This record gives sequence, structure tokens and C-alpha cells, in this order.
Amino acid sequence: MIRLAIIGSTGSIGKQCLEVVDKLGKDKIEIVAMTCGYNLELFKKQIQKYRPEYTASMSDREDISENTNHFTGEGGIKKAIQISDPDYIMMSVSGSIGLKYSLFSLDYCKRLCLANKETIVCGGGYFLNKAKMKKVKILPVDSEHSSIFQTLLGDVKPEEIFLTASGGSLRDKNPEEIQNATVNEVLKHPVWSMGKRITVDSSTMVNKGLEIIEASYLFDFPQEKIKTYICRNSFIHGGVKFIDGSMKFHIGKPDMKLPIAYSLTYPERVVKEEGINNLDELNLNLEKIDIKKYPSLKIAREICGIHSLQIAYNAADEEAVKMFLNNKIKFGQISVIISKTLDRIPELNNLNYNDIFKIENTARILANEVNL
Amino acid sequence: MIRLAIIGSTGSIGKQCLEVVDKLGKDKIEIVAMTCGYNLELFKKQIQKYRPEYTASMSDREDISENTNHFTGEGGIKKAIQISDPDYIMMSVSGSIGLKYSLFSLDYCKRLCLANKETIVCGGGYFLNKAKMKKVKILPVDSEHSSIFQTLLGDVKPEEIFLTASGGSLRDKNPEEIQNATVNEVLKHPVWSMGKRITVDSSTMVNKGLEIIEASYLFDFPQEKIKTYICRNSFIHGGVKFIDGSMKFHIGKPDMKLPIAYSLTYPERVVKEEGINNLDELNLNLEKIDIKKYPSLKIAREICGIHSLQIAYNAADEEAVKMFLNNKIKFGQISVIISKTLDRIPELNNLNYNDIFKIENTARILANEVNL
Repeated sequence: MIRLAIIGSTGSIGKQCLEVVDKLGKDKIEIVAMTCGYNLELFKKQIQKYRPEYTASMSDREDISENTNHFTGEGGIKKAIQISDPDYIMMSVSGSIGLKYSLFSLDYCKRLCLANKETIVCGGGYFLNKAKMKKVKILPVDSEHSSIFQTLLGDVKPEEIFLTASGGSLRDKNPEEIQNATVNEVLKHPVWSMGKRITVDSSTMVNKGLEIIEASYLFDFPQEKIKTYICRNSFIHGGVKFIDGSMKFHIGKPDMKLPIAYSLTYPERVVKEEGINNLDELNLNLEKIDIKKYPSLKIAREICGIHSLQIAYNAADEEAVKMFLNNKIKFGQISVIISKTLDRIPELNNLNYNDIFKIENTARILANEVNL
Repeated sequence: MIRLAIIGSTGSIGKQCLEVVDKLGKDKIEIVAMTCGYNLELFKKQIQKYRPEYTASMSDREDISENTNHFTGEGGIKKAIQISDPDYIMMSVSGSIGLKYSLFSLDYCKRLCLANKETIVCGGGYFLNKAKMKKVKILPVDSEHSSIFQTLLGDVKPEEIFLTASGGSLRDKNPEEIQNATVNEVLKHPVWSMGKRITVDSSTMVNKGLEIIEASYLFDFPQEKIKTYICRNSFIHGGVKFIDGSMKFHIGKPDMKLPIAYSLTYPERVVKEEGINNLDELNLNLEKIDIKKYPSLKIAREICGIHSLQIAYNAADEEAVKMFLNNKIKFGQISVIISKTLDRIPELNNLNYNDIFKIENTARILANEVNL
């Protein structure tokens, strides 16, 4: 029986995690804590169904449920993590607050299922060293990283890793159309249904940039050996190439529930899914990424391994995406804001906890001050 | 330092094994014994280059080399296996004599690298139980089985296995053209350059049928869950699907040296090959196999798991291929000979050593007696 805490149960990953929990069944997994930000309406329904002993939310409303010990605020979420004594924690909040919770979680669980990019991108070596020291197993929940994790099982260190990208909603537009793409155009993702920021990040490929950085840390691998391709239907998730030229590809339906379930059941596979039956009907082709269309992807490769710039890259993008969604900047200006913010951040490594969050704040401020 | 005996060094796999040995280098591998059938001209050159202490051939000529202890005949080959004290044995002879040597080898090595189909197809459970008892590790050298072996590393038992076939030289012909295909047409294999029998067996898909049987024994897997597809360029070698819908594909250039090297270096990968660099230039599509074009493939599935019929299937095919290559029968009659031979063989399992070779001889005689 796994005792699971879900941090961020009302988000896209959190909701899908609950579907996986349903499939696993009550004899295999128990939700001991559940937390959310501000979506209390959904949260209350979730609590009613799953009845965790401990809950928490960022909202300061305390009348959540009669059947749970409820805490509020960042401290309340940490308290729920601590007091519920989980085996595994599903870290499915978005944003850099996730890094704080992930770091805190290392003291209170055996396995951290990681759907929060900032934990690795902003936590960098600081986070991973701590996880190693505390002997907490990190299971990636991103479909790309889960696929690489799976293809590496039982084998030697690879020579190359590759990740795929859908190419986002603008993949077939020309550079000028991309420059001026509207919010509505950008939010129509061709494959995945996700939150707004990550949908925009798919179109700029900031998302893929963050994933390259994550993969580089998670698999201790140089970014230049992490290749990226477009896979239009997202059936090929990722793979590896070994020194002898052998390659292993991880292939399946694009469904986040698979990597979520895997992160919970590894090394077993438990959740039954039909998957793809007729391999002859699959289109398995990969395409080169036209780097000119995705300047932010190029930037990510340049800063990969420079901890301070990784933090700034993520923060500046988050700010720029907000501006774009509020119609304050053009789509094509997102990468300009990232680039100009990075120009003003010193290149620093070996950061500690305070440094990380200071640099993040500074980057957010600088991003908002960029002269376009 | 691996002490290697190569049984069948002058055949297609044997020659490529020597290339792999060259790449591995003298500090990693030493050839302690080498045997061949009758190709003494090439064998002498190989001996001169690799200088094994013990050699043997089926030919009774004894003036092979001054620098080696040479033995002759089947007994001589066994003697070379025994006396050379190898760690690993590469079993690269073709035909059912390979089963005899494989069984004998189980007493004299830690690892058997198996390129001889008959060892599994005709040896069946008798062979594999013995290997298990003697704790000899069986490493498949066939590219398909090596690929499945590799995709299974570190993971759970799969729900499905799949093998690919090039489709052979007649893959784009219509049934009537196939029926009457000439020897020259059949021997033009689109991808692999191999011996004559296996090239014919590719076009009839008897080869794929034998591989289904082999996979079923090697991976303890029911034949109906072993799927087959055509992969025109043979870049996809095989793969597995798990209960959660995840699939792993093994992909690479069609080059027998890869599975040969892997069988020698597992669990490491040592022999450097550039492999495929631009995944976007790969055509990774799979095609359904039109079973009507390949009646022998259907027969293989029907008899998989019935030991006596597996032996007869292989023996009848070998006889039929000889007849076809000598222009005594039409291409389309190969499957008829197999089918009519099988009709006259009783369905037996739990065979012992003598049974196996008796059934084989009977099947050969019956195959030659088939009224077309």
C-alpha cells in the first residue's frame, strides 16, 4: 500500500493523477494528503471523493471540509506534507514554488514524482545533490523524461538522448506569422491539452528548452548530446542511442496518465492501457526542428548548465508569457524578453537556497523592465 | 579477457564475428578455438591471422596449419570445443548439426552466443532446460531476438513482442508471380546479404516463422502475442509492448555485427559504431504482412510449441529449399512440401536427444517423397 501526497491536486497533472489513483485501486494506493492553490470548488469535490486525512490550500479559507485536517498557505502545505507521513509525493504544482515544496519534501518521503520543471531547472545541482544525500528516488513525470528513464533501464550510459516536441500550435506557420501570432492561435495545441503557460511554451519551445535542461541534470548528460526532433503526433516520446549505434525508442499514445502511473508504480507497470494495436497504422516519422522559428530553444542550449541563467530563463519566460496572454507584447517578443533579461544576470553556479530565489525575483523584475 | 571459440568461422556470421573480434581488440578477446566445415581455403587464412591454439573442420584433410592442434569431423569439432576451455562459444554453424554442438557446448562454456536457429527450434525445451540446469547464459545473435532481449532489459514481462521482416525479395510481387518466382529473383534480397537458404527463407517467411518459434522459447512467450510486421529498410528490428501501453522499439542500421558484438560484450556495449545520426531522415513505418503471400508463416504459428512439428517444419523446409535451388520445384511449392510433410509427423512433445534426430531424419525423407 503506497501512502501518497498530491501537491497540486486541482491542476492538469493533479487531476490526471487522481484518475490513475482510481485505476490503481484502494488496495494499492491511499491518498494521505492533498493540496491545492485556490481552486477550492474542485478541491472540495476531490476531498469528498478521496477523503485524505490532511489537506491544505494557498487560499486562507478554512471551511473546506469537516472530515479533514486543513491547513492554509505555503506553511500549511508544508505542514500537510510533513504530518501526513507519505511514502511518495506527487509534485504537480507549477511554478518555482514547486522547488520549495520539492526541497521540503526530501525530508519526508522515499520517492518524489516530479511534474514540476522548476525543481530541476531552478533547483539544479543544489536540489539533486540534496535528493541524493537524502536517498529520495526522483521519478520524472514529464512524458519525455519518463520515456528516457524507461529506455535507460538495465542498460549502459548512452551516447545520445533525444526528446521529441509536437512543435506547438505554430509549427506550420512562417516566421512572420509566428512573430505576430495571436493568443487564440497559440493556445490551440495540436496534441496535448494543458495549462496556458505550457501551451505557449510549446509554441515558443521554451518548454523543450526547459526539458533539455532537465534531461541534462536528471541523466547527468551534456546538452549538446541531447537532440530534439518534432514528432507531429507525439507518439514517439523520446529515446536513447548507445555507443554501438543501437537505439531504443519509447513509443505510445500521448497520454500523461502513463508517465504519472509509471512514476507511482516503477519498477512495476500496473495500470492497464490498451495502447496501440496496429503498428502498421502508426506514422513514426521525426522532423528536424527549424531553429530559426524557435529562438528560445537556442537560448536554452546556450545557458544549460549555468545555474543562475537557468533560473532567469524560466522566470523571464513566465513573465513574458503573462504579458503575451494579456496582449501586452507580441508572441515574437517573448524570446526577446528572455534574451534581454539574461543579458543582465551574472553567470553563477553553486548557488544556495537564498541565491536561487533572489535571482528568480531579480529576473522577474528585469523581465518586466525590458525595453522592447 | 574473453576466451572465445567460434564454431563455424567461415560462414556469414563467423566472418562477421571475426570483424567484431578485430574491433574489440586483443586485450579484450582471444580466439582459443575455431572450426569450419569444408571451406579450408578461407579457414587457413583465418587461422594464420587469429592463431587459435585449437582448430577443427568437417573435412578430413589434416594439413591445415603448423601452428595449431587440428582435429577433424564432428568429433574433432567437439574435441576443439572441449579442449580449448572457452568462456564464450559463438555458435555460427547452420543446420541441425548446430543443435548437437550447442548441446555439447553447454558443458564447456559460461555463455553461448547463438546464431543457430535449429538449436532452439529443434532443441526446444530439451535444450533450454539443459542450458538452465548448467547455468549457461544464452545470448541471441539474430538481430530480431537480440533487439527484443535488449528492449526487455531491466523491465517487466511484456504483453506483446514484435519482430520485423524485410518481406524478402518477393514482397512486392502478386501471388501468381510469387508462385512461379525464379531462383535468381528469390536470391536478390532487398536488405541483407546472407546465405542462400536464409535468403529463400526470407522470401517464404519460413525464416520469420522460425524466429517466432525461437522468440516463443527464448522469451517464454505465447506465439499469438508475438506480432510480425514488414519494415522495408529493416531499421526497426523489434520491440515490446507493456501492459500500460508503453512500447520500446529497438532501432538501428541493419548490420549483423551489432547483435554479434552485443552477444559478446553484454551487459556492456563496447564496439563503437556511428549508427544513425539524423533521425529525421529515417523512414520508420511498419506494414502489415499479407499472410496470403506467406503460407509458411501461418504454418509456423500453427505448429509453434509442438516440438516434433517444429523439427519437421525446419527439416522439410531445408529439403524443399534445396529442391527449389536445383530447379526441381516451383517457389510456391516450398510451403506445400512443408505442409504435406507435417501432415505425416505425429504431434509429440517432451522429446529426448535421439527422438529429435530421428524425427528430423524422418521429416527429410518424407519431404522428398511428397507428391506435388
